[in-house]
Amino acid sequence: MSVSTNTVDSAPAPNPQALIQQERAQARFNPTVMHYFLESSKEHAEVFKTLIQQLERDPILGNDASYYDLTKAQQREITARRIGRVAQYLEVGDPLLWETTRTSLLNLVDSQVGTRIGVNLGLFLGCIRGNGTEEQRKYWTTTKETVHLKNLYGCFGMTELAHGSNVAGLETTATFDKSRDQFIINTPHIGATKWWIGGAAHLATHCAVYARLVVDGEDYGVKTFVVPLRDSAHNLMPGVTVGDIGAKMGRDGIDNGWIQFSHVRIPRFFMLQKFCKVTKDGDVTLPPLEQLSYSALLGGRVQMVMDSYRWTARFCHYCSPDGETQLLNYPLHQRRLLPYLAQAYVFSAGAWKIDRTITETLDTLDKNVAANDMPQIMRLIEDLKNLFIDSASAKLTATWLTADCIDQCRQACGGHGYLAYNGFGKAYNDWVVQCTWEGDNSVLAMSVGKPIIRAVKAVLELGKKQKASLAFLNDAAKYDNTDLVLKSRDDVLNSEKVLRAIEVLVTRIAIQGAKVVAENNDNFDTVGAASLALSKLKAHLYFLGEYVKRIKENEFSEVNQFLIKLGQLYATANVIEKFGGEFLSNSIISPELLNEITNKIVPQICTEIRPDAITYTDSFQFSDFVLNSAIGKYDGNIYENYFGTVKTLNPHSVTKAPYSAEFELALNRPSLDIRDRFEKSGDAESVLSK
Amino acid sequence: MSVSTNTVDSAPAPNPQALIQQERAQARFNPTVMHYFLESSKEHAEVFKTLIQQLERDPILGNDASYYDLTKAQQREITARRIGRVAQYLEVGDPLLWETTRTSLLNLVDSQVGTRIGVNLGLFLGCIRGNGTEEQRKYWTTTKETVHLKNLYGCFGMTELAHGSNVAGLETTATFDKSRDQFIINTPHIGATKWWIGGAAHLATHCAVYARLVVDGEDYGVKTFVVPLRDSAHNLMPGVTVGDIGAKMGRDGIDNGWIQFSHVRIPRFFMLQKFCKVTKDGDVTLPPLEQLSYSALLGGRVQMVMDSYRWTARFCHYCSPDGETQLLNYPLHQRRLLPYLAQAYVFSAGAWKIDRTITETLDTLDKNVAANDMPQIMRLIEDLKNLFIDSASAKLTATWLTADCIDQCRQACGGHGYLAYNGFGKAYNDWVVQCTWEGDNSVLAMSVGKPIIRAVKAVLELGKKQKASLAFLNDAAKYDNTDLVLKSRDDVLNSEKVLRAIEVLVTRIAIQGAKVVAENNDNFDTVGAASLALSKLKAHLYFLGEYVKRIKENEFSEVNQFLIKLGQLYATANVIEKFGGEFLSNSIISPELLNEITNKIVPQICTEIRPDAITYTDSFQFSDFVLNSAIGKYDGNIYENYFGTVKTLNPHSVTKAPYSAEFELALNRPSLDIRDRFEKSGDAESVLSK
Repeated sequence: MSVSTNTVDSAPAPNPQALIQQERAQARFNPTVMHYFLESSKEHAEVFKTLIQQLERDPILGNDASYYDLTKAQQREITARRIGRVAQYLEVGDPLLWETTRTSLLNLVDSQVGTRIGVNLGLFLGCIRGNGTEEQRKYWTTTKETVHLKNLYGCFGMTELAHGSNVAGLETTATFDKSRDQFIINTPHIGATKWWIGGAAHLATHCAVYARLVVDGEDYGVKTFVVPLRDSAHNLMPGVTVGDIGAKMGRDGIDNGWIQFSHVRIPRFFMLQKFCKVTKDGDVTLPPLEQLSYSALLGGRVQMVMDSYRWTARFCHYCSPDGETQLLNYPLHQRRLLPYLAQAYVFSAGAWKIDRTITETLDTLDKNVAANDMPQIMRLIEDLKNLFIDSASAKLTATWLTADCIDQCRQACGGHGYLAYNGFGKAYNDWVVQCTWEGDNSVLAMSVGKPIIRAVKAVLELGKKQKASLAFLNDAAKYDNTDLVLKSRDDVLNSEKVLRAIEVLVTRIAIQGAKVVAENNDNFDTVGAASLALSKLKAHLYFLGEYVKRIKENEFSEVNQFLIKLGQLYATANVIEKFGGEFLSNSIISPELLNEITNKIVPQICTEIRPDAITYTDSFQFSDFVLNSAIGKYDGNIYENYFGTVKTLNPHSVTKAPYSAEFELALNRPSLDIRDRFEKSGDAESVLSK
Repeated sequence: MSVSTNTVDSAPAPNPQALIQQERAQARFNPTVMHYFLESSKEHAEVFKTLIQQLERDPILGNDASYYDLTKAQQREITARRIGRVAQYLEVGDPLLWETTRTSLLNLVDSQVGTRIGVNLGLFLGCIRGNGTEEQRKYWTTTKETVHLKNLYGCFGMTELAHGSNVAGLETTATFDKSRDQFIINTPHIGATKWWIGGAAHLATHCAVYARLVVDGEDYGVKTFVVPLRDSAHNLMPGVTVGDIGAKMGRDGIDNGWIQFSHVRIPRFFMLQKFCKVTKDGDVTLPPLEQLSYSALLGGRVQMVMDSYRWTARFCHYCSPDGETQLLNYPLHQRRLLPYLAQAYVFSAGAWKIDRTITETLDTLDKNVAANDMPQIMRLIEDLKNLFIDSASAKLTATWLTADCIDQCRQACGGHGYLAYNGFGKAYNDWVVQCTWEGDNSVLAMSVGKPIIRAVKAVLELGKKQKASLAFLNDAAKYDNTDLVLKSRDDVLNSEKVLRAIEVLVTRIAIQGAKVVAENNDNFDTVGAASLALSKLKAHLYFLGEYVKRIKENEFSEVNQFLIKLGQLYATANVIEKFGGEFLSNSIISPELLNEITNKIVPQICTEIRPDAITYTDSFQFSDFVLNSAIGKYDGNIYENYFGTVKTLNPHSVTKAPYSAEFELALNRPSLDIRDRFEKSGDAESVLSK
């Protein structure tokens, strides 16, 4: 296929955009309607588009490929400038839905801006919400206008150099000085240096510090304190030492810092005392339940599941047929890429659901705490335990699989995936920290596996009923055998059957794990592999279950058949095949049926999805601004766009490198004899050998 | 454990270095002797140490953590300067062994220098060796002193913007102009722009160009030509347009470029004509076998297997017990990390073997080509086909697993793995292109799966005997059943039995694949998943097989028991568990035995390896210079080293960011009312509403 171009060509140039247009012309469903499903409702979908329009037109928040050429110093400066711009949008006050979506979109289009704001509004204020009284919360949030990124800028002082995931082991101290009604915040040694504190190096005026409460020589464990770092002229307070952590694998636009406190005094009322109180006389009231103080951290996990949906969506655009080579016509590429398309869709359902559930639960908790309704609080704590399992397993599974998606889609683009201007490199580097921060995925996996194994044990040994998302374990006795669960192709394509199969698999792995733990003196370290599998399978159960529910409830049911197809791909390729060893060794499926899935069922589903690939990705409604990729533009004119970006950012009229002269000298250096002053020459030898 | 420190501490600081010292004191084998095994011989091990000493002391080639702070421009400049320095070492002329190891070590300590030299000496000269006459080779290699990085600097002009892996589809033309006895090199359109050409943007004076030979209007397919890009003053030749490709995911120190040729004339004798010739009159002699022209590319694959060994070794240092937290005492971390230690050891055996085999085969081929011994050449071509399978499967498996190793070891270090100065980020970004270049791993996997499936079909249907590394397929009929191969714990710990089990698994998957292909009109696209599994399993067979052989032949047998243990871990954790689904569905092992491997055998082997972890990693003999990691230093004083590096590179006496004033203005901005000129105030309302 030939096309007239704006350059002189001595042979017909490729015309990839024509192929993309052909693909679009064959759309079998309306991407606008599909977008309602992906964004959970028509209302949310419209908010999404309005915000994207606002962002991409804004002179400061808009982005292009030059973003990928920025040095660390430039990234930090631009990020700070963008925060200043976002502040103005926050100040004009949109409703909450609008604000939540905005944060989520900032995380998508410039994650550095999203995170740098998130540390302040999410973590700093989240800590205050979770641990402060209602009055403390109002003061630090709205009275000081922090919520509009004004006057104050908070950071979150939890992790220490020698203590990452172990909050209970933190060593910074907050010693009560009764004589002056103050706490003294101190960093006793290098290991207790606050480390990784986003915002500390440059922006933050205040820090929510996690420190050991010490009163009259007694250690009451880790509590939370607001500690000013910089005064109103942005100069460091006395006793506060702050440094820049420097270069990172990604997110260099964030000013992560370290903090050491050397006998820093704060008034007693800077302690956050919703649950834990210290009186003027040093009387300590401890919280009724330590877990409550961590509830505010759940928000971050939920956000990461939403980020996973959006980032998978961003990169599975490379699952759509690129013009010329039409890679996606090959079965190999279909089965490599289309499962990520399914992942984006299935994640979306789970992300919106968990977001809603956590928001509602925390709001209800706040109300009951305000009313001091202890029985109700205790019931909510039980709900929170289940939510912890759901959110932790969803976070770890979604963030890991999104990293896989970025990596695999990059690899599928061959060398072009390695060029910075196509966005994969920075995205991967920015993304992967999500697998580590706010609960390292591997550590989280253990904390999910353990309660599941305990729960199945409680069901079998004590007949204790499980609730909510663990209720399926109540059938444990019924499934403690080796009966096959998925017996036919029809079973495999039936979402209810697949969900049941995952439940049975989780049950059997948990039963097996309980036995191993029992044989090893109740040591859960011995079931690491099982815990990892349980945590991932539990997440797939959640995501797929919510997806199936959402399809049933879908107001715009004309797209359901296309949603069902992606669900089937997810179930077979992303769950059953991926966990083939587990499905087989726990007798959920037969080897023959698993082979049929690999050799026939998955390839066939892929063939059925292929014609709509472009419409599925168009349904995310991501503009060129969102993808910010030289080869990923909507018009499909990949070579012109790609070459154009490269030439614009690296003008070829500059024909020599700045260091060219030095290199030319090295290349055209005099002979070794000359540089050796002829000391090793035959002439020299005849003299020196005599 | 407390220690006196050089700072004031108000509580005992952690003392991780004491724990490392304790671990070392308990060494049960001699790491120097183990190093002989890893470097293939005592002689090689000593060359290794001599070279590392030379590199780490050199003022230009030495490296430290500031490397991770360099901008792209700085990386390029330093890389070029280092190339100039390496040139001087090359010129003083060490033996070949020395040179091979030096390239391998440069790839390890500064892969940008290694690659930028490798494009010239490996790819440019490799292309000339593979395609040029002996005289052409001498001229371009030694007469012009290219081999000493002098006078000429070559680049490798294969890939085009629209053609990555498909060499046969390249569109650059080399049209013979009989009247002037010249070829005209031309880029017909944007898609044929040479793309990714390392060295082109800044350094290269010449390019080995892959272009379609056109004589008298007839297209003879892709041949190779030496085309000068820059004159002796380093100015671009007329008709040559070169640009910088710009920023990449990693390896920004390499000046990848794009090239367009606009009717560029070269003399006829710049065509490489070992096999293919064009006379003055335009008579064309085509090569007897097209495959021969690619043989020179094998060297790069072999180098990547060696790189995989060295990079796995580098990062599995994080498998050694870090001082304070002693993560490695947890079974979960043992099973997460120790398999990478096993990977480094097992890879080393395969890397040295394949390096030797390819070198010998290509040397023999050159001799026979010189002697024009066609029967012998034909036999060597057959050997090369097998070597292609071995090297391709080893390259794809080793490079992917090394990427996993870097990624997993980074994650195991938690947040600290994300800091640039610990080396993971740049290493990962630099590394992963190995999975894409010189044969995309997924494409390679198909090219390995296909001949294996064909071979098993030939054995079963035609009784055609397979040779060398595919000889095991001759037993296909015997294993075309569902008999278990691994039946007991003893079998699983017996290397011969495991090797046999992998052979049977490969055989059964290939037989199944052959059936699917037959059912789909001989379309190999339908066995993508099987090909992928085959290519990886074939590589494990090679690596583990060579490892077992090397242990048997080991001159220093006192370390064998420690080698055997790592081999058992590799077999169980890296092969059988990882391919659990395949082992089960092909009836190689029972579900019960696989569960025993997961729950008992692997954890127990890990427990046995744990006490020697530090000695295993000390055996690589990597100095602090090689690891270049703030937390990875030999003395184990992780917190002081880490904090020291961060403070040195980011002095905390600088308390404000360069952009602080702008941010302070944003934070302390006037109220919205003021900025709105009070136009929206109650006063304004009362006026404007009237």
